[in-house]
Order: sequence, then structure tokens, then C-alpha cells
Amino acid sequence: MVDRKQCEELDRNDPLGRFRERFLLPEGVLYLDGNSLGALPKAVPERLREVVEREWGWGLIRSWNSAHWIDLPRRVGDKIAPLIGAHPGEVVAADSTSVNLFKLLCAALEIVPGRRVILSEAGNFPTDLYVAEGVRDLLRQGHELRLVEAEGLLDAIDETVAVLMLTQVDFRTGYRHDMAALTAAAHRKGALTLWDLSHSAGAMPVDLDGSGADLAVGCGYKYLNGGPGAPAYLYVRRALQDRVRPPLSGWMGHREPFAFTAGYAPAKGIARNLCGTPPVLAMAALDAALDLWAEVDMAALRAKSVVLAELFIATVEECCAGLGITLASPREAEQRGSQVSFRHAQGYAVMQALIAAGVIGDFRAPDLIRFGFTPLYLRHIEVFDAALAVAEILREERWNRAEYLRRAVVT
Amino acid sequence: MVDRKQCEELDRNDPLGRFRERFLLPEGVLYLDGNSLGALPKAVPERLREVVEREWGWGLIRSWNSAHWIDLPRRVGDKIAPLIGAHPGEVVAADSTSVNLFKLLCAALEIVPGRRVILSEAGNFPTDLYVAEGVRDLLRQGHELRLVEAEGLLDAIDETVAVLMLTQVDFRTGYRHDMAALTAAAHRKGALTLWDLSHSAGAMPVDLDGSGADLAVGCGYKYLNGGPGAPAYLYVRRALQDRVRPPLSGWMGHREPFAFTAGYAPAKGIARNLCGTPPVLAMAALDAALDLWAEVDMAALRAKSVVLAELFIATVEECCAGLGITLASPREAEQRGSQVSFRHAQGYAVMQALIAAGVIGDFRAPDLIRFGFTPLYLRHIEVFDAALAVAEILREERWNRAEYLRRAVVT
Repeated sequence: MVDRKQCEELDRNDPLGRFRERFLLPEGVLYLDGNSLGALPKAVPERLREVVEREWGWGLIRSWNSAHWIDLPRRVGDKIAPLIGAHPGEVVAADSTSVNLFKLLCAALEIVPGRRVILSEAGNFPTDLYVAEGVRDLLRQGHELRLVEAEGLLDAIDETVAVLMLTQVDFRTGYRHDMAALTAAAHRKGALTLWDLSHSAGAMPVDLDGSGADLAVGCGYKYLNGGPGAPAYLYVRRALQDRVRPPLSGWMGHREPFAFTAGYAPAKGIARNLCGTPPVLAMAALDAALDLWAEVDMAALRAKSVVLAELFIATVEECCAGLGITLASPREAEQRGSQVSFRHAQGYAVMQALIAAGVIGDFRAPDLIRFGFTPLYLRHIEVFDAALAVAEILREERWNRAEYLRRAVVT
Repeated sequence: MVDRKQCEELDRNDPLGRFRERFLLPEGVLYLDGNSLGALPKAVPERLREVVEREWGWGLIRSWNSAHWIDLPRRVGDKIAPLIGAHPGEVVAADSTSVNLFKLLCAALEIVPGRRVILSEAGNFPTDLYVAEGVRDLLRQGHELRLVEAEGLLDAIDETVAVLMLTQVDFRTGYRHDMAALTAAAHRKGALTLWDLSHSAGAMPVDLDGSGADLAVGCGYKYLNGGPGAPAYLYVRRALQDRVRPPLSGWMGHREPFAFTAGYAPAKGIARNLCGTPPVLAMAALDAALDLWAEVDMAALRAKSVVLAELFIATVEECCAGLGITLASPREAEQRGSQVSFRHAQGYAVMQALIAAGVIGDFRAPDLIRFGFTPLYLRHIEVFDAALAVAEILREERWNRAEYLRRAVVT
């Protein structure tokens, strides 16, 4: 088992260590929930102040041009592109992940005509499946949402499948799909792939282009640190872009939004996937949060993510033997994203006790305590201390209090 | 014609005069474009700072509960409700106007089965018509988007119409529809009504309930002063709420968003119309901007709006006789919203010259110069001075310069 001294040594030699000071993190908190809401980059408050007071307050309507608000969705998209293996002009920031999924799912079903199956996995993030149900029920064209377990996916891809819709990294266990293999299998059968990158982008290198992926969506508020409910993004492989017919055909996706002409005519390229007026304040926060990525070595990011997770697993398992906790995440780093989950019969109360002790992770029903490792701002020593806190709470049964056992509405 | 002294007198006796100091407006600018982007309420920068630094930065994920982020869409909706004649629980803030229009249009077509016509007017705001086209093309169920001129609407409502979709106040001319009469006519034929309130809410009393209107959407960034691209809102009459099947069936509209259960089950009431994670920063800005409405007398608001518009029309017409400018808005106040447009063959260049002179309105193709009157923060003297500036620019032909005649991409 690693000790504190070794963790301090790891922190001293951390090539990403300098990014910690680019974030505002509260004293006395070990924050292992950047996979739910990323921490606040210091660049954001200043940028927002400028956008609000100078651009909105002083510039008013003129700022759509003079402050280039109108370009924000594409500019932000182009900043996200290198994080997910996309080219400039293949990504645009817009709406929420759910809305973007709706857009691309509708588009995919039109691009692959004559097929009726949306294939996904039963454990996919619920909103992704809810959205797919909504598309199926809205279209009334006999579409089927076919759900299988992760291990059955490769076998389930057949000639009836229009689109394989998956989240790259599982929100419960952190299990990571092999994007290249699944995409290749889908292509062999003539199906498209649509990936939700919400739990992977910003925590590891993602290679949409190298994997041949067709479509993707992702959220801005987790590892991208864009703020609560930050705008989401979507990706369409260049070759498919002009085959997308936007179901949400609003003016910002029009060829000439400000000509106010009759008749919808989609813009060329990725911009047609925009719909309404972009939320400038939220988009500016995400834009500012993304700037530091230009300095990040993605291989180093992934290496640190693996070290943090292994350190956490090893320490928890070493210190919690016989305390009713079992690893729910894959043991192989290659099969994991940047989060680790353990099962405990009183998982909810355990997490409440951890949060009360200043260790913030989260709980996912029925019994998962979940810890996310954001390599940009987490220190090795923090992960080590968090693991010790888990052990202490379990050993002392500190979760066994009425106020921890009673569930809140939102967890 | 009114003179400066009378305007100063009107300002001294203005019952809404005290609201001016609740806004940050730049020196040296006469801002007649609050119908495109409302001015910055002073409460917003402070509130945003708190949300960003304390709630996000310090509270992190905990703020979904402790800072009540999760309630924002409904809380903001309930603040908008009294401005549009709605009851608590009938309005929710979400997404963009275009996206909300898509949701309610799809819902309306399901609530009125067997009918295929979406009736609207040819001059409706383009994105509204683009969205309707998108719905029609997506559903492939033989729907028709039937467009008529405003004066032909009453005659065009027949038993084939599923939904009458209109913007209450025309974005070009400021012409205001008779919401009650049109809704009654639609109901007589068994059709629903869906109103876009973007150019009316916050500039005059709107009475959805009293008019019997069924569905409505509106934007947060015009007369509600919520900031550029602020979240939009939607209204569903109480009696219809549980008949809406949300086409954008994301997790925030689920009965139990955080139970992460399989299978979409819509929330009861208005909340089912939510989709993805709400944009907290943008929503908080709108929330803060809405607070002052609790103090506003809506009858006084409308009265001042009418005085401002009449003052502007009278002064422009008096001072610009023979200078090629004609009123494009209805002369009757009862038929107008809170904006006034004039036609001029060189409208684009005229508006550029006005903006250069510090009078901000906007231009709408092909020849309209448009001026919005926000009663909350505009002074009578400003409207008078703006009218004199129009006259000066026309008299001296100051629009006739290369830099004004050359069109920018965004206007």
C-alpha cells in the first residue's frame, strides 16, 4: 500500500500539478465529484463579469457583433474538438445533452432509412434512454429501442440496427466501451454510431475521428468545468454533416439567420444543428473554462487519472477489508473511465457521512458510492485521504445515524 | 407637438420613473432596442457573482439542493406567470423559445388528433415558422403549415386546423393580435392556440388565462431583461397539462429524475416540459432580473408604453415630413405592442447612422427601422431626443456614407 509520503512525492512530480491553482476549490473539502459538476476555474468569474457588465451592460445589442457573441457556439465547439478527437468545424456547443441527443437521433434515423432499431444498453444513462423513447413515440414509424447488456452489444448489432447509441463511460461503474471496436462492428452492418461523451471527455483522450464514430454529444458541466447546467455540445463527422436534417430547425441553424426570409434552409456544415438563440452568459463561462485545455497533455491526463484511481482502489480495499464494501468498477484500468464505484448495502448513508466529513462523492441507486477523479485539479494526497476517510466511516459505522439514513430528494 | 419641457414634466410625474435606477445603462446612449435585448438590471451582476463564487465555487455539487438550483425552472416560471396572466404552476423556464415551441407544437398536434393543419401568419417571426416546418417534416404524418395574412386569420380558422400558432405582437410592425378573439374563434372550431409572447410579455399586460389561451412560449432576453440568450419559458393551461406528451423527454421532466429508473414517466403538471439539466448561471440571471416585477403596476406600464410610442410617432412625423419616412406600425395604440417601425428606402443605412449617433434601434429587412419602448427604464425625454435624432439624420442625409450603406452580417 502507498503511504502519505509517496503521495506527496507523486504530487511534487505531477506534470499536471500546476493546474490546481487555476481552480477555486473550498478549503477542507476533498472533491471527488467533478464527474457530476466540475470545479470553478478561476478564469470564469472575471470573464463573466466582463461579459455581464461590459458586453451586456455597456455594449447591449451591439455585442452580438462587437463581442462576437454570435460566433460563440462554433468557437466553443472548436475548443472542445481537440479533446474528443474532432476537427475544427465538427463540433458545436448548444442546448443540453438531452436535446442534442434528440437532434442527432432523429437525424441518424433519417440518414439510415428503412431500419427501425435504436440499439443501446440497458444501463445507459437514463436520460439518453428516455430521449430515445420520446423519439420512438413521437415519430410513430415503428421504431424499436432495443436494450441489451453491455457484454451482449457486439452480438446484438445486426442489419436491423439503424443506430448504436451508447455512453462511452458508464455513469454507475465507470466501465468504458471500446469505441473503435463497437463503431467498426456497427459500420460492418451498415449502422451509425452515436456516442454520449459526458463521462469521458475531459477525463481522458477521446478519439472520435480515429474510431470512425459518426455522431456524438456531451455535456459541458462535468470534466469540462463549464458550470452548473453549462451548454452541451454535439459532433457530426464531416462527411455526414450535410446529410443531417435538423428536427429542431430554429433560426440559428438557418443559412441566413438574420435575413428573416421565409422558408427554412439549413446552414452548411455543423451550424445547422443550432436551434434557438445561444445562452451567452452560460456559453461564455464554458468558453473561459475551456481555455486551459490548450496547455494540457492528454496522455499525461490519462496517466494521472489511472494512477489516482488505482491509488484509491488499493487504499480502500486494503483499509476496508471485511467492512462490507466491494469494487463495482472494472479492475482493469483499460476498461475504466476516470471514476470508481464501490457497492455498500448502506451506500446512501455512507455517502452522506462522507460528505459530512468533507469528502464529496455521490450515490447512485441502489447501492453505489461513486468517486470521480479529475486529473486537472486533484492531488494524490487528497485521493489517499479520501480513501482513509471511507475506511474510517465504515470502521466506526459513522453512516449509522438517522440524519444520514434519511434520503433527500436530490442526491 | 410636444416639446422638451413637457417631456421633462412627464418624466417628473412618471410613476415608473424610479425603476430607471435599477438598470445599468451606458452614458450617451438612447436605447430603443430593449425589444431585442433588454438592459442589464443592477441586481444581476451581484447575484451572478454569488451563484458563481459561493454556490458553484464553494458549494459545488451540494448547491443543487442547498442553493435550490433544482427548483429554478419552476421558481422562475412562477415569477413570469403574473406578467402573462398565468397561475402558479402553469409556467416553467427552460431551453430556448424555438425549442419550447417545438415541444408545444408536437404536444398540440397529439392533443387534437385527426387534424393536420398548423395555421399561422406569413409574417410570423421566422424561427417560429422554421420550427413548424421542422415538426411537419419530422413527423411525416401529412401535416400542413398553412400561412395567411394577419387580416385573413379569422376566416382561415376551420375544422381542419389543429393549432393556431401566432406571435402576439408582430416583430416587424408591432401589430398586436386580439388574443381573446382569435382564441375564441379557434376554440369554436375545436382548435388549440399556441402564442409566442416574445414581443409582448414585459411590455404590456398579457392575459393568457382571461383569453382562454391554451399554450404559450416566450423569451427571457427582451422585455424581461434576463440577459443575452436568457432561458425561455413555456405555458400550458392547467387543464391541458397532463395531456401533454413531451417529445423532448429528458430526465428533468421525469417523475423521479434522480431515481435513475428505467422507462420514461412524465412528471405531473408543468414540470414534464423540462428536458435536460437547466443552465443555472443563465437561469439565475433571469431570476434576479425578474424580481423587480413584483413592484410594477402593469396598467401603468402599458399607459407609459403608449405615451412613449405616441410621443415618438408624433415627433418623427412632425419633424420628418417629406424626408421619405412612413409609419409602418398601426396608428391605433390598441393595435400596437410596445414598438414602432418606420419604412425608409435606405432603412439599413439610416439605422447605422442612428447607432453611430448613439440612438440604438434596429433594422429589419427590407426597409424597416424599428424602435422598442421599454417603459421600465426609458425616459420621455430620451424618446423625444431619439425622434429629433432621426429627423436630423434624414434632413442632413447623414445615412449616405459608405460605412453605413455596407451591410454587416448580423444586424
